[in-house]
This record gives sequence, structure tokens and C-alpha cells, in this order.
Amino acid sequence: MTGRWVIVAADRQKRPSDFRLDRPTILGRDHCPFCPGREDLTPPEILSYRQNGGAPNSAGWDVRVVPNKFPALQVEGSLERVGDGMYDRMSGVGAHEVIIETPDHGRTLAAMSEQEIERVLWAYRERIVDLKRDVRMQYILVFKNHGAAAGATLEHSHSQLIALPLVPDFVREEVDGARRHYATKERCVFCDMIRQDLADGARIVVENADVVGLAPYASRLAFETWLLPKRHGARYEDAPRHECESLARALKSVLQRMDRALESPPYNLVVHTAPIFEDASAFYHWHVEIIPKLTPVAGFEWGTGFYINPTAPEEAAEVLRSVRL
Amino acid sequence: MTGRWVIVAADRQKRPSDFRLDRPTILGRDHCPFCPGREDLTPPEILSYRQNGGAPNSAGWDVRVVPNKFPALQVEGSLERVGDGMYDRMSGVGAHEVIIETPDHGRTLAAMSEQEIERVLWAYRERIVDLKRDVRMQYILVFKNHGAAAGATLEHSHSQLIALPLVPDFVREEVDGARRHYATKERCVFCDMIRQDLADGARIVVENADVVGLAPYASRLAFETWLLPKRHGARYEDAPRHECESLARALKSVLQRMDRALESPPYNLVVHTAPIFEDASAFYHWHVEIIPKLTPVAGFEWGTGFYINPTAPEEAAEVLRSVRL
Repeated sequence: MTGRWVIVAADRQKRPSDFRLDRPTILGRDHCPFCPGREDLTPPEILSYRQNGGAPNSAGWDVRVVPNKFPALQVEGSLERVGDGMYDRMSGVGAHEVIIETPDHGRTLAAMSEQEIERVLWAYRERIVDLKRDVRMQYILVFKNHGAAAGATLEHSHSQLIALPLVPDFVREEVDGARRHYATKERCVFCDMIRQDLADGARIVVENADVVGLAPYASRLAFETWLLPKRHGARYEDAPRHECESLARALKSVLQRMDRALESPPYNLVVHTAPIFEDASAFYHWHVEIIPKLTPVAGFEWGTGFYINPTAPEEAAEVLRSVRL
Repeated sequence: MTGRWVIVAADRQKRPSDFRLDRPTILGRDHCPFCPGREDLTPPEILSYRQNGGAPNSAGWDVRVVPNKFPALQVEGSLERVGDGMYDRMSGVGAHEVIIETPDHGRTLAAMSEQEIERVLWAYRERIVDLKRDVRMQYILVFKNHGAAAGATLEHSHSQLIALPLVPDFVREEVDGARRHYATKERCVFCDMIRQDLADGARIVVENADVVGLAPYASRLAFETWLLPKRHGARYEDAPRHECESLARALKSVLQRMDRALESPPYNLVVHTAPIFEDASAFYHWHVEIIPKLTPVAGFEWGTGFYINPTAPEEAAEVLRSVRL
């Protein structure tokens, strides 16, 4: 009906008895496969940053990227689409990687220095650039689940990357919407948004030379915050170094503000960038969305696409803005 | 960008300190405003079923419908749409009602008799028929949050109804998709689905004279189950009595099976029906979607529109089918 694809990840198959909700289990320090000295507990590394040198897959790294041990998609296989009566299926070709953000088990992204955060953001970029060379991939999704309630299963701070042979729904909708706006106005809708919100001021959370952080006008959940580069650009991986620096600075500020104002909430962070094979350069505008998970109501919203937000974006922005760091 | 509307419910405004995630608080028996004898704790009733008589707003009812004490939308006010620069806003006109399903505080929908469930389903219908007379309303959304993790804030079994001055996203997408299918095939896509899935058998959970319960081919979450009338019909409220009886029977069976197989999971239930002012009679097909909330991963899926389902629908259907009631 909707053209939506779903990944059925049989390798991650769970038995019904695994589905108890209780308090979700999260892997702590004692058995953490992301801690230095335990490099053999993950598949061999794809990338690492090692300021002080050291051999691959040994301790001494600052940031480390490895394939997900329980991937939702696999790199091997051909991209065959077959009909199944009225339905469609294809094999689960793609990549699923983990970006281990720090060797320090207890350090959150919010607690890292701006330089450390920038290194993580740069690792996102490097992996996107590399994976784009696989012509089977149509979209590369970078995201982070922080905290068990946001879907994290490991405590040690990490992000994930999924390369997809299709364009996911939310990107499809955004790109199509931005294209429609451009078709009538010949302006980028995100640039318009930044301009109006900066002039207004009420929904701005942070601002620096290159990046603005704001609570979007039609925020779906309380304290939803977007980080956008002021300069128009469709692709995250094309952002110049100084934008990456400014993004790290703004991101740290927003995460620290959320930690103070909302008592270190679980959150999801998603990088929104243009699909690989579409020329969206005129009308799409990359950005990062941060969604703190404050109430369990999302289940209903999820099922209906219908959002009731108990906090006006102007109030959320004011609360975050007034945090003293 | 996406044309999405969000309800900012200022009356339900929460302060940042209210947003701790911890274990969500749920109102138990001692302070339950839905128990008989406490009718004065809710706004005056809109509808009640009283097999044994009794005055309105007194004990003795079997099903009771009241306005939500903390409504997301209010009946008063005019439906004025105004521009706010590039954005749009309108006043929050609508209705928000609560269907108290049983006088018995401890009784879940799954535990009720088929006759009792049918009465609840009939109350949905009566309220929809009544609210449709308000020409400002474009859609009437009936749903149920069961369990704190699914968004329920009261323990006593209840459903909710929200009458909206617009058509929510999920309905828009489904209706448009079904219309596209009809445009090329001249057949209802849901009827096609029922035909193929009944012939295949692998995704069927329950079946009776009028209703089929199945795990959809592209299930977004594990154990997602849809209940569809076999006979084509676009509107829930137009379903004849015997379909309502069959729906009650199938619903009880599915909920009992979920309770046994998945240890009484929290769940969301959503009635999908055609928008009030669209003639979708040829191509839309009302149905009920039940989504057990088994993992907290929904936060990510919610933010991306991108679903990784760890359980194949064929396996989920088999698990539910093989439960011995």
C-alpha cells in the first residue's frame, strides 16, 4: 500500500520468550566487547584513528569502526528483486557497521571534548565516502541510540551505520517535500526555515559560526532538536572541515543542555543526508535530528503517524537555551 | 516539508522535571477515576450501556464514554488556519473521548467475554456515527494503549477516540496507496491481500466467518497483527452487526494468544477507517491493527521510518496460531 520496505533480519531472530519488556538488558563494563584490549570480540576493524599509533585490532585506538556482529544486512549477495504474488522481496544486501566513539567505557558523547566529538563525526564521513563506492547502495543511514530505552543494547558509547539498497521512507518524504517547495519557490525549504527561525529567535537552542540548533515548528516529540548547517549543502559527507568542527561544538552544547535540563535522557540521533543517486543539491539540506525519549507514548504515535506534543517548541528551546553550562 | 501536522497540547503541558523516563507511573485501583461509584471524577458521560438500568453518571453501567479530562483537542472554537511566515497553524479543534470498557478495574480486554468486547466495539461505532455530524471533523481515530510501556496512564481498561479537523499521515498514505492500486488493477489492495494470504496460509493467525487475522507480509514490528473483514467495506461504522460479532471473537482470540505466547505484552490497537469526506468506498478497506510493544527499539524506527523486524511474519503467525486456548 505505502511502498514501504521492511528488513526481516532472520539472523537476529528472537524466540517469543526473548520478548519480555521488563527493563531492557544492556551489556555493561564486565562483558563489553567495545573496550580496549578486547578487540578480538568484534569482527576485524574497518577503520581506526590512532593518535599514538598501534597495530590494527590492538588497543591504543581513539575511534574504531567494526562490522556489526549481528548485522541486519550483509554485504554478500546479489540484489535480486522477486515478486511473491502481489508482494515484493529482495535479499538483504547492505552493510551494518558500528562506530565505537571512545575507548573509555563510561564516557558519553556529551562528555567528550569537542575534538573527540569531531573525530566521531569525521569517522561518519569517511565511512559514507567509502561505502558510496558500492553501487548497489542507495542510502547510507548514520544513527545513534543512547540508553536502553532508546534501543541501545551496549552501554559503551557507539553509533551505527546502515548502508541500504533503497531509500528509506523518511528520506523519501523529506526529499519529495523539499523538491515540491523548490518547484514553487526556487528556494531550499531548510534555508527558509533557518532564516525565519533565526529572525524569530524563539525556537533557537544554539548558534555558532556555521551551525544552528533549533526546535522545529512542528516538533513531533517534546524537545526534538535539529542541527543544521547555515550554508546550503545536500550531503553530510561534502561538508567542509570547519562545518564539522562547528557541528561538534553545537552537538556537545545541545547534548549537555539536554543532560542538565532533562536528567540525562535516552535519545536517538539521526543524520539526514541526500540519497546517493539523486541530484538533490539545489533543494535538499543535510542536518542532524536529536530526539530525546522522554515518554513511552511513542508507541501510539508510531502506529498512527499522529503526534501529540505536550511541550511547545518555543518552550523547549527556552528551557534548553537557559541551561547554564 | 512533509505536510505533517502536530498537535501541541498546551493544556497537557509538562515541565522538564516531569519528563523522567524511569518506570512510567500508572494510576492504579486506589485512585482510579474509571471505577463505578467514582463517576463524579470524570466529566459527565456522553454515552453509557446499562443492561440493568440506572441514572446517567451513577454506578450500574457496563460501558461508559466520557470526555477526556485532559483533552489534546477541544470541541469549542473555530477552525481558523493562519500562516506564521512559512509555517501553518490552526486552533486545536476536535474531540477527545475515553471509552471505559468495563466496570471491573482488573479486567483486560482479552479477559472479557465476546459479548462484552462486542459492546465495546459497538460503542466505538456509536461515537463515530455521532461525531461525524460535526462537519468540522475530517477523521475519527479510535485507539487503545494497553500497559504503561504502550502509553497507558490508567490501569483500568479503556480505549480513546480523537476526532480531528484533518486526516492523519498514516491514513493519508494508506488511502493514497490503495487508490493507486485500484487505479491500475480496479481491485481493492486489502481484498487482494486477504485472498493471497488465505490461499497461502502461512501468515494467518485466526479466521472466522467474517474476519481474518494475519501477520502482514511487510510487518514493521514483531507480532504485528491485522484484523480485516473478509467482505469489502471502507468504513468501520458501516459494518453490519454480524461483522462486529466476528471482530469481537477474532480480537479476543488474538489478544489471548498474544497474552499466552508473549507473556501479556503491552500493546497499541488502532482502528483504520476511511476519511469522512472522501469517497474511498471502492478501494479502501477498514481494519484493526494490533502492535505489541516488545522491544524499546521503536524509538529509532520512529525517527527514521525504517524498520528492522527480528521475527518473520510467518513465524509470528505460527507462534500465535499454535497457542492452545
